[in-house]
Order: sequence, then structure tokens, then C-alpha cells
Amino acid sequence: MLEEPATMQPIRILVTGGTFDKEYNELTGELFFQSTHTGDMLRLGRCLLEVEIETLMMIDSLQMTDAGRRHILARCAAVPEKRIVITHGTDTMAETAAVLGPELKGKTVVLTGAMVPYTFGSSDGLFNLGTALAFVQTLGEGVYVAMNGRWFPWHSVRKDKKRGIFECVPGLGKLPIRPGRLS
Amino acid sequence: MLEEPATMQPIRILVTGGTFDKEYNELTGELFFQSTHTGDMLRLGRCLLEVEIETLMMIDSLQMTDAGRRHILARCAAVPEKRIVITHGTDTMAETAAVLGPELKGKTVVLTGAMVPYTFGSSDGLFNLGTALAFVQTLGEGVYVAMNGRWFPWHSVRKDKKRGIFECVPGLGKLPIRPGRLS
Amino acid sequence: MLEEPATMQPIRILVTGGTFDKEYNELTGELFFQSTHTGDMLRLGRCLLEVEIETLMMIDSLQMTDAGRRHILARCAAVPEKRIVITHGTDTMAETAAVLGPELKGKTVVLTGAMVPYTFGSSDGLFNLGTALAFVQTLGEGVYVAMNGRWFPWHSVRKDKKRGIFECVPGLGKLPIRPGRLS
Amino acid sequence: MLEEPATMQPIRILVTGGTFDKEYNELTGELFFQSTHTGDMLRLGRCLLEVEIETLMMIDSLQMTDAGRRHILARCAAVPEKRIVITHGTDTMAETAAVLGPELKGKTVVLTGAMVPYTFGSSDGLFNLGTALAFVQTLGEGVYVAMNGRWFPWHSVRKDKKRGIFECVPGLGKLPIRPGRLS
Repeated sequence: MLEEPATMQPIRILVTGGTFDKEYNELTGELFFQSTHTGDMLRLGRCLLEVEIETLMMIDSLQMTDAGRRHILARCAAVPEKRIVITHGTDTMAETAAVLGPELKGKTVVLTGAMVPYTFGSSDGLFNLGTALAFVQTLGEGVYVAMNGRWFPWHSVRKDKKRGIFECVPGLGKLPIRPGRLS
Repeated sequence: MLEEPATMQPIRILVTGGTFDKEYNELTGELFFQSTHTGDMLRLGRCLLEVEIETLMMIDSLQMTDAGRRHILARCAAVPEKRIVITHGTDTMAETAAVLGPELKGKTVVLTGAMVPYTFGSSDGLFNLGTALAFVQTLGEGVYVAMNGRWFPWHSVRKDKKRGIFECVPGLGKLPIRPGRLS
Repeated sequence: MLEEPATMQPIRILVTGGTFDKEYNELTGELFFQSTHTGDMLRLGRCLLEVEIETLMMIDSLQMTDAGRRHILARCAAVPEKRIVITHGTDTMAETAAVLGPELKGKTVVLTGAMVPYTFGSSDGLFNLGTALAFVQTLGEGVYVAMNGRWFPWHSVRKDKKRGIFECVPGLGKLPIRPGRLS
Repeated sequence: MLEEPATMQPIRILVTGGTFDKEYNELTGELFFQSTHTGDMLRLGRCLLEVEIETLMMIDSLQMTDAGRRHILARCAAVPEKRIVITHGTDTMAETAAVLGPELKGKTVVLTGAMVPYTFGSSDGLFNLGTALAFVQTLGEGVYVAMNGRWFPWHSVRKDKKRGIFECVPGLGKLPIRPGRLS
């Protein structure tokens, strides 16, 4: 039976930084963060969803701490929207998903990011943001990662850092969460 | 309950042309079609879905005929994949969806396109392709349009040509299909 | 002997339109003119020359009239700068140069343009503007065309429209100017 | 009197690396060198000059050594072309120019580079390459730097690293070259 879209539901985008939003500093030759490009990307995509963008932090995900993840979790729980996209560096995206997954109830959360900064022209960011916004509208409650055109539940995904891709590893997250992980 | 991805299902992309794939002819100053950019876009998106790209035609959708729509319908029915994305010009995308919708059974089909050619840099095409590939994995059987970050069932969508956006018009397609429409 | 730069001389850029400044209208699928991108291009080139940009008209050079050429000539003569770059459609760039060449004295004028609109990403415009700004600083008085990395005196240049390139045709402009050309 | 172009003279481009040719490594998030983009840039600029591209090294100019500069000087002297463009990192471009300047005779050499990698989309590289190729055709014998749309003789230029721009400092190079500089 043909699915009918529910009345369009509002979406919250929580920005945490990541390669997605990195810029090139032409004075130092280094990458750095300024403000998020998420709004520009939605305009480029002529996106007409009801979206609220909120920047939680602007960091490389290798710098993501337990406190940072707790903060993300708290905001996911606190915002009124039931559908949430999180932009996140790819290096520890699966780890953050694994923190949110067991604790967040009643919401659909999709984490996404990019392998190349949006401003560099050859970025996968716009494609990934498109998939994340689509998955967040259609997947049921739970925490997911959207990368490489695919979606993964929080407990079955990891980044293959050698190849720069995400892969499905069923059962991965079913291992007991190490105590103290979020201490 | 957290959704589990089915074993990854193969997707067929049927290319029909549209603004998506237009190029600028620098000798004449006119737009024209060469070959599709869909493969380049999937590479840019680091897409790892199992995708088969098939070019049916390369036309402006204002030139789409009933015979063309019949050909698309026949290919949708004939290909082995249950999940199909169709790239299509936006001007008559809703009309093609309305032809496929009542006749195609047992498949999930998502039509998408772009307002600006992919090669022009400021295109919505990559974003739209991302959403279409995500929707086609998660929506149930039926025919849908994916534009502006949204999805629409075939019988409830039309393009507002003055504003260049797609809108949901419930009941639109429930009008009886004019006999002879596809004669 | 090593050349010494004169005190940096001010440059006037006279904008007349051309492919350079065309935009894509996503509602009609046609190309049109809005405002010039010359300022954006100078910023992208981190250009620190003393440049004044003045838009004379925004037209396809196939629409350039004798009156239009007279207006360009009058502005070249009237502006205080001795060094002038004119952005111009490529189709009749050589014709405009041939009108300015015999009449303008005491100034260095370089016409340039692009085969692909600047906003389309794959444009030669930024390269051409760079060459034009360099030639206008170093060439002696006279009227020149800068395209394809080369410079041509006004009387020895024509566009090969089949190949979309400019070529040197010595003696071309030494033919008597047709009477009434600028009537 | 109107200048006449000499019969088109061949140009050698000596590639040494620099920001110009840096790429983003999406696995490590670091910048690195692969092969030069100079050929792509000439194609984008529809450049029809007779150009030979030769890669001498692919390094960050902060790594440029005296031996490296000696190698560049030797190649400038050895190649048959009288007109040479050198692509070079901006940080020590003026230093390399100051080594070539006093020693190279009978040739016109223009050094240029970029503040942002060519592949990053917002690069000044294409503009700078355009200016360098124009200056090398029109300036007399000597060694010059082309940046920010301007040209500077080797003995009067330095990079203001705080602002990321080149400036003319007359007399700078007239200081005696420190003995041992190239030892």
C-alpha cells in the first residue's frame, strides 16, 4: 500500500562540526572551523522541510569527549522535535551513535558527516545531508548513521578508517557498553 | 523499535535526462545533453549502494511523450530490482509519476531531478539524488516524487512552476485518469 | 635590463555583459543577465590593483549595436584612467575592438570575455580576466583582445566561431573600414 | 604606437609545488601533493599558448632548500625557452626570486602561486596563472613575482605573511646578498 506522508514533521539539525564544516585558512595553511555551512547547503538543495539548525559545538570528532556526547544526548532529549539530524566528524561518529542509541527514547536520530569539507568543491557533504534528511523522515524511532548512501543502526556500524567508508557489523553494539564510558 | 536494514537491496537508476544532465555548449551558448552525470555524482557521494545505472533517454521533460512514459513504465516492470530511482526533468515529473502510479505494482519507485544542471556548480542535483536514494530504500511499494528534501506520493504532487518548487496537493491524483491519456 | 613597475596605475573595468556574466534562470531554463560578477572575481583573485568597475550595459554581444560601440568608445575616452579592461561577449568582441582601435588615442584598452559563464564552475573567465589585467598594465597604447592566454592587436584578430577560439589574422583590420559602419 | 605581438614564443612552466597543487587527503585530513593541476588549469583557461610543463619538485615552499633553488636556477638556464613561469609556494617565493634574479641572464621569468589550493574551488590559482602567463609574454628580461594581479621585480617584493599579500618594497634586494646563502 502506498505510504502517505504524515503532516510534515519539523526536524532539528544539531551541528557538532566535523570535516563537513572545516575551512581552509589561507594564512596558515591549516584547516579550522568558522560557522556551519548547513544553512547554505539546505538553500542549495532548495530544501523546503521545516528545519531548525542549532550549533552545539564546532570540533573535530577526534576531540569529542564523554561530556560532549552527554551534551548531545541531553539536547536530543530536550528539543521538541521528534526527528533529529546530527552533523558529526566521521572518525568517532559511530561512537557517539553508540552512546545515544541505548539511552534516547521516542525519537529518530540520524548522524551524518563528510569525508571532504563542503567548501572544497569535491565534498560528499551535500549528498550525505540529503540522505540523512530523507532517512530521518522515514525511519522509525532509534539512532542511525547515514553515510555512503546507506543507513546503519547505532549498534551495527563502524568506520573502516583505512578505506574511509562505513560498514555494517551486526552485533557490534550488542557487546556490553564498557562501564565508565561516560563517566 | 529500532529498524534493522534488510540485506542491502539492489537499486536501479533509470536516467531520462532533464535539467539534471544538461550541459552548456560553449560554441552555441545553448544547453544540450551528452551523457548522464549520475555515475559521477554517486562517486562524489562515496555511494556504496549496489546501483545499476541505465539510460532510457536524454530529453527535456517538456518533450516527454506518452510513448516515452510507456517505455519508462515497461522498464520499471521489467528490471529485476524492486527499488528504482528515475531521474527526470522537473516540468513533467509529476505527470510521469501519475502514469506509473496506478499501473506499477510490487516496486518502490522514486522520481527526482534538479532545478539547475549538475555541472553548473550551484545545482540541487546531488542533494536530490541523495534524498531519492534514501527514500527508495525506506518507503514502501508505490511511486513517489522526491524534491525539495520532501517525498510525495504520485497522486498528490505538482510542480508550482512560478516558484520552481514541488507541493503536496492531496487528492489531486484521485481524479479519474482521463481515458486515452496514454493512447 | 629589469623592468621597474611604474607607480601602480589605476585601471577602469567597463562591463558590457557577454557570456562572462550570464546566469541560469532555474524557472525558465534560460540564460539571463543580473549584475556583473567582476567584483567577485577580483576578490577571488585576491587582486590588489586599483580598479574601478563600471557597468555600461549587460547584453549578449550579438545584440551589440553601433550606438553601443559608440557609447563604449565615448566612455573609454572620457574616464580618467589610461588603462581600461572591457568585458565583452566573444561573438563580436573583435568587431568592437575594430571600432575602438582607429579612434581611441593615448590609452591602453584590453577586451576580454569568456566562453562559459563564470557561475557555471568550468569557466575560463577568471583566467581571462587575469590575463587582461596583466596585459593592460604592460602593453603600450592601443586596443587589444585578450583570449586563450594570448593578446592580439585590434586589427589582427578574429573569432573562429566553429572552434570557439581567437586567432591572429595579420592585416585583417588594415582593410578600409566600411563607410557607414558606425552611422 | 600599437604593439605587435612577436611571433608567439614558447613558454616553459616549471612546477615546484606550493599551495597551488595541494590536495586534501580524505583519509588523514591532511594536505598532500599528487601531480600538478597546471595542465587542467590551462585547459580550463582554453589557453592556446605554446606551453611545456615540467615538474621539478612537489614541495611546500617552506621546505625549499638552497639546493632546490640551485636546481630551479639550473633548469631556467638550461631550457630552450626564453620565457618561463615558475609555480611556487608563496611563503618563500620572494626568496627564490631573489636567488634567480642576480644570476639568470637573457630570460624572462615569472614566479606565481596561490593562497588556496586549486582543487578547493575558492582558489586564486587560475587568476594568478593567467596573470603570470600574460606578464611573461610582455615583460622584458628579468625575474619577477606575479601575485594579487600585480608584478614585482625580484629585488623589490616580499610577502606580508600576516595579511597574506605581496607588497612592493623598493630597494629590498639591493642589500648585499648574504655570503653563504646558497652554500
